[in-house]
Amino acid sequence: MKVQKFSVSDAKLVKSPGQDAEIYVGNLVDERDGGPVTIGYGRYAPGQSLTEMMAVHDTMIVLEGRLSVSTGDGTVTAEPGDIIYMPKGQAVTITTEGDGALTAYVTYPHWAEVRE
Amino acid sequence: MKVQKFSVSDAKLVKSPGQDAEIYVGNLVDERDGGPVTIGYGRYAPGQSLTEMMAVHDTMIVLEGRLSVSTGDGTVTAEPGDIIYMPKGQAVTITTEGDGALTAYVTYPHWAEVRE
Repeated sequence: MKVQKFSVSDAKLVKSPGQDAEIYVGNLVDERDGGPVTIGYGRYAPGQSLTEMMAVHDTMIVLEGRLSVSTGDGTVTAEPGDIIYMPKGQAVTITTEGDGALTAYVTYPHWAEVRE
Repeated sequence: MKVQKFSVSDAKLVKSPGQDAEIYVGNLVDERDGGPVTIGYGRYAPGQSLTEMMAVHDTMIVLEGRLSVSTGDGTVTAEPGDIIYMPKGQAVTITTEGDGALTAYVTYPHWAEVRE
């Protein structure tokens, strides 16, 4: 694969697999590209909550809005420009409030492989 | 390692190893944390140029300013919210113009391991 640039308008955002919240994700790079990471954008509507056990190491960068991640150890809240690192094996609850959020994410290994 | 949130103010930005441009990077997660990825922020002064052969798979998210990446195939320019994926083995020239740029990055594998 070669160097590529993506904007959020390049992503086809679909409801995040396996849950009902208004959270939409769109991969731009994944296992089909031959590299080690999955890259994409996520859009979270306001007032959403998603609890999951991390199956991959996931780095989220908040681009718009605000988003909180809670674990047994507490809650962190991120604003535009902030990074949240969610290691594999951690149980997390991601929540949004009034503005929702737009994120970019990079996962290792690929999402699709662990969800199959 | 547990879930963590970072802001650019958490990063200790130092001149990018092995080059003279006014480009400063600060890792927040690296090989010492036991995970597979290095995560950090990069700050590029205006009018800088850095050419390198990618030793890792590097995903950059532009947070402020503007930045271009040139390869033998052409040039892409990214603005805030855009993602540039630079796969391992690609020769790239990263340049900034009047505004410089602030980026977040995620590399796999770790930078430090390939630079030693």
